[in-house]
Amino acid sequence: MRGDEWAMFKMTIVPRFGDADALGHINNTVAALWFETARRPIFELFCPDLVFSIGTFPFILAHADYDFVGELFFRHEVEIRTGIARIGTKSFTIRHEAWQEGRLGVKGNAVVACYDFASKRTVPVPDDKRALLAAHLIVDADI
Amino acid sequence: MRGDEWAMFKMTIVPRFGDADALGHINNTVAALWFETARRPIFELFCPDLVFSIGTFPFILAHADYDFVGELFFRHEVEIRTGIARIGTKSFTIRHEAWQEGRLGVKGNAVVACYDFASKRTVPVPDDKRALLAAHLIVDADI
Amino acid sequence: MRGDEWAMFKMTIVPRFGDADALGHINNTVAALWFETARRPIFELFCPDLVFSIGTFPFILAHADYDFVGELFFRHEVEIRTGIARIGTKSFTIRHEAWQEGRLGVKGNAVVACYDFASKRTVPVPDDKRALLAAHLIVDADI
Amino acid sequence: MRGDEWAMFKMTIVPRFGDADALGHINNTVAALWFETARRPIFELFCPDLVFSIGTFPFILAHADYDFVGELFFRHEVEIRTGIARIGTKSFTIRHEAWQEGRLGVKGNAVVACYDFASKRTVPVPDDKRALLAAHLIVDADI
Repeated sequence: MRGDEWAMFKMTIVPRFGDADALGHINNTVAALWFETARRPIFELFCPDLVFSIGTFPFILAHADYDFVGELFFRHEVEIRTGIARIGTKSFTIRHEAWQEGRLGVKGNAVVACYDFASKRTVPVPDDKRALLAAHLIVDADI
Repeated sequence: MRGDEWAMFKMTIVPRFGDADALGHINNTVAALWFETARRPIFELFCPDLVFSIGTFPFILAHADYDFVGELFFRHEVEIRTGIARIGTKSFTIRHEAWQEGRLGVKGNAVVACYDFASKRTVPVPDDKRALLAAHLIVDADI
Repeated sequence: MRGDEWAMFKMTIVPRFGDADALGHINNTVAALWFETARRPIFELFCPDLVFSIGTFPFILAHADYDFVGELFFRHEVEIRTGIARIGTKSFTIRHEAWQEGRLGVKGNAVVACYDFASKRTVPVPDDKRALLAAHLIVDADI
Repeated sequence: MRGDEWAMFKMTIVPRFGDADALGHINNTVAALWFETARRPIFELFCPDLVFSIGTFPFILAHADYDFVGELFFRHEVEIRTGIARIGTKSFTIRHEAWQEGRLGVKGNAVVACYDFASKRTVPVPDDKRALLAAHLIVDADI
C-alpha cells in the first residue's frame, strides 16, 4: 500500500513480549488488536470527540479478514497502514497492512456497516461521512 | 487452596496456543484474563441474570495481584480455584489460584469495592450479599 | 453447521466480563481468541502430546476470516463448533462457528498451510493427517 | 511519579475500542498488557538486540500488582511512566503508572527475578546490569 496520491493513515505499534508465541512469531490474534487500534482515525471521522453511547454509535463491524504473508517479531516496531478500499451504499471497507523493517507481515480488510442501534437496521453511509472517507480512498485498491 | 470445609468455585480453562510466549510458558497477562473469567460466579451472586448497566453495576475492581510461582504450559488444561479471602465493610477480597497437572502456577487476589456509579462513591457491602459471599469464605486464608 | 453425518468438534467458552465492549457486545477481536482455542483438537491430530518445538511444528496460519452475523453477550456461554471445510494439496481450511442461546454470532475460516520450518517452505499435507482430517470434513460445506 | 532527578521511561499508548468494557472504562486486564509493553526498555538493558532464546533469557516475572485508582477511557491517549523502584540481590522491582489527561489511572509493580533457565535457578543481578538499572532508580520510591 503506497499513499503518494491519497491520505494514508499510519500508526506505529510497539509489540509486547507476550505478543510472540512459542514459535517466536507474533500470534495471529494480535493483528486483530492492532488493526482495531488503527481504526481510531476512522472512528474520529464519524465522531470527532470519540464519546460514544449505544444511542449514537454509528456502525458495526460486519466482516474482518487477515492474510498472514510474512513473519513478524517482538524486537522491531510495526507500522500499521490504513486506508479506505471501498465506499458502498450502506457499508465501506477499511484496508490495513502491518509492516516491519520494510516487509509486509499481515494485510486485511474490515467491512463496516452503518447502523442505527435504535432500530437495529443498517442505514446509508451519510453523505458528509462519505466525503470524509473519500479523502482516504486507496488509489488502485484491488478488492 | 483446599475446599473441604467451604464452597470453592472451580472452572476449567483450555489454554490457547498464543497464550504461551516465546519461552513456551503461559504469559503473565493471561492470568488476568483467566481470573476475571473465574469471577463469573461472584458476579452472579450480585446479579443473577448477569444483565448489567452502568446504573446497576454493583462494584469496581480496586486492586489485583499475581504471584507467578510455577510454569504453566499450553498442552494441559488449567483449573482455576476461587474463594473469598476477606469480607470488609465496603470491600471484599477474592482469592484465585491456577493449577495445572497438580501444580500451582499462579495465585492472586482481586479486591472489589462495592460502588454506586450514580454518586461515584464506595458503599457498604449489602447484608444479603455479605451472607452469600460468606458461604465461599476460605478457611484459614492468609491475607 | 450441523454435525449429523460427520465428527464435529464442540467447545464451550465462558465469556469474560471484559470481552464485552462499550456497546455491551463481545468485541470482534475475541472471536480470534476463541477460534484459536477451538483449534486444539486439530493441533492434536498433528501432534497428540501437544509438545511443539520450532523444529517439529507442522503448519502455519495463512489466512483467517470472520463474519459477524449476530450479537454475542457476556451473560451466556458460547459454543464453538469446528470442522474441516476443505483439504487441499498443501493446505486445509478449518471452519468455526460461535453459537449462543441457539443463535449464530460469528462464523469464519482459518486456512492452515503445512510447513517445514527448517526449509521455510510449504509441504504437502501428510497422507496420515489427511485421513484424520477427513473424518471431520463438513458435509455440504460451502467454501 | 516524577522524573526530574532520574531517567524515567515514557511510552504513549493508543487505547483500542475493545479495551473499554461494558461500563465504558478500560478493563483491568489491559493494564497488564500496557505495562508489559512498557518494559521493553528494561528488556533492552539486558539484551540490546531483543533477540532472545530460552538459553539466554535473563529473567522471569515473579510478581505483578495493580492499583486501579482512577477511570481510564478509550478516547484519550495514555502515558505509561516506568522506573526502577528497588534493586535487590537476585531481583528488582519495576514501577509502572498509567496517566491519562493528567490523571493517574493505574499504578503497579512488577518483580523480576534474574534466572538461569538452564539450571532453573535464580541468580544474582549481574553487576553491569545493576549499574544500568540504577540510572532509572526512582527517587523517593515508596515500596
